Amino acid sequence: MLELFHYEPTANSAKPLICLKEKGLEFVSHYVDLHNFEQHSPEFVKLNPNGQVPALKHNGEIITESTVINEYLDEVFPEVPLKPDTALGRARMRIWTKFVDEYFCPSLSLIGWNNMIKDVVAELSPEEFEAKIARIPLKEQQAKWRLAAKQAFPQEQLDEARRKCGESVKRMERTLSETEWLAGSTYSLADIACFPMASGIPRLMPEFMNERDTPRCLDWLARMRARPGVQAALAMSRRPPNVLKTAKTAAQ
Amino acid sequence: MLELFHYEPTANSAKPLICLKEKGLEFVSHYVDLHNFEQHSPEFVKLNPNGQVPALKHNGEIITESTVINEYLDEVFPEVPLKPDTALGRARMRIWTKFVDEYFCPSLSLIGWNNMIKDVVAELSPEEFEAKIARIPLKEQQAKWRLAAKQAFPQEQLDEARRKCGESVKRMERTLSETEWLAGSTYSLADIACFPMASGIPRLMPEFMNERDTPRCLDWLARMRARPGVQAALAMSRRPPNVLKTAKTAAQ
Repeated sequence: MLELFHYEPTANSAKPLICLKEKGLEFVSHYVDLHNFEQHSPEFVKLNPNGQVPALKHNGEIITESTVINEYLDEVFPEVPLKPDTALGRARMRIWTKFVDEYFCPSLSLIGWNNMIKDVVAELSPEEFEAKIARIPLKEQQAKWRLAAKQAFPQEQLDEARRKCGESVKRMERTLSETEWLAGSTYSLADIACFPMASGIPRLMPEFMNERDTPRCLDWLARMRARPGVQAALAMSRRPPNVLKTAKTAAQ
Repeated sequence: MLELFHYEPTANSAKPLICLKEKGLEFVSHYVDLHNFEQHSPEFVKLNPNGQVPALKHNGEIITESTVINEYLDEVFPEVPLKPDTALGRARMRIWTKFVDEYFCPSLSLIGWNNMIKDVVAELSPEEFEAKIARIPLKEQQAKWRLAAKQAFPQEQLDEARRKCGESVKRMERTLSETEWLAGSTYSLADIACFPMASGIPRLMPEFMNERDTPRCLDWLARMRARPGVQAALAMSRRPPNVLKTAKTAAQ
């Protein structure tokens, strides 16, 4: 049996959701509500000691890290392949999934955290907030929550993150001017990894992704959104997008 | 034909060097002298626009990123396999290679940069230094060079990097108390990725890796160093280790 512990079909949770739907695999969905800090609950930390989604459970074994999960799913369920059929193509795919993990996603995430977390914690008393923070397993995540709660990331860091989002889009545009998909002529895990990060850019940072400067990116986004697998994953959302940005949830 | 563009058998350059030697593959070695800024030369940037080593050239195609290179080598030359033979084992391997890339290596690298770069640039005039910086393709790398040249990384950042090195060692020790190698019972790319980062820790940070606290790590290091493939890669060093730390090289 396949079970996925995930949040909304955004960011890293979207990656295995899209992969599972593209492959038409049955799975049990466990929604972990990050707005209610469920990823830090003792029950979830038993599954993933880092207290992070997504996590896959398959035959009783837990696999973490969205990029690793997708490689795993593609190895175990190869009927609908999501990797190029040459080693060179797979290398190009992995350069992209790595770039998303190390550059594009952290940059976008920092900006998202700076905008969203203040509202998430707004209705917590200082004591409730401290109690939530205390059970976060990773110390660096505790520090990030504290900064985000006060919207206190240094402006220089935010500017650099924004610049890197712009660079990421430029890199996409360059690649998509040469090949149909990010890893070549084959739709792959590279596209799946990039989509959740890129999909909000035309709205959030139109100066980076727009008809004039990045027509290939917009065309790619449209092709991604037309895919039944992507649509099925996005349809799993429990919160409309604007609620995602401004949700004020009470403490548990 | 296989060609590898690499620096010393340390850090990310060591990863494909060990992989190639473990597999007994013939390759042309191109030494890129980072102490002379050769990675930013126009010739090298033509190969890797990011101006970073290592880079593999195979059948005329360039593959970058040490982790991606090693997965590629293992796919194209599977005779001496360096991946576990189950999908779960490969997932565990990839969680380690990703952890090294995103956590252990950047933390150790920051400390190394803070200690080493000052000496590397000591004999450059301000104008020569600016000329070297100007041709670094990645803006974030330019910023890192400027900070490192003045040993100006904030103490808080250095302390956090050091803490993460300690956490990395603890994670290794936990895993090695359960399995012989990092990804299970099979020696794999996970061990190869971790070795160049871990090998200096007993000397540089003995409080983290020592006989009392981390016997499994020390045993693993000894097993790694006993491997002919690892020995062959380390034997490719052109600089004795102490020169690596204090080299004062003139401008080109």
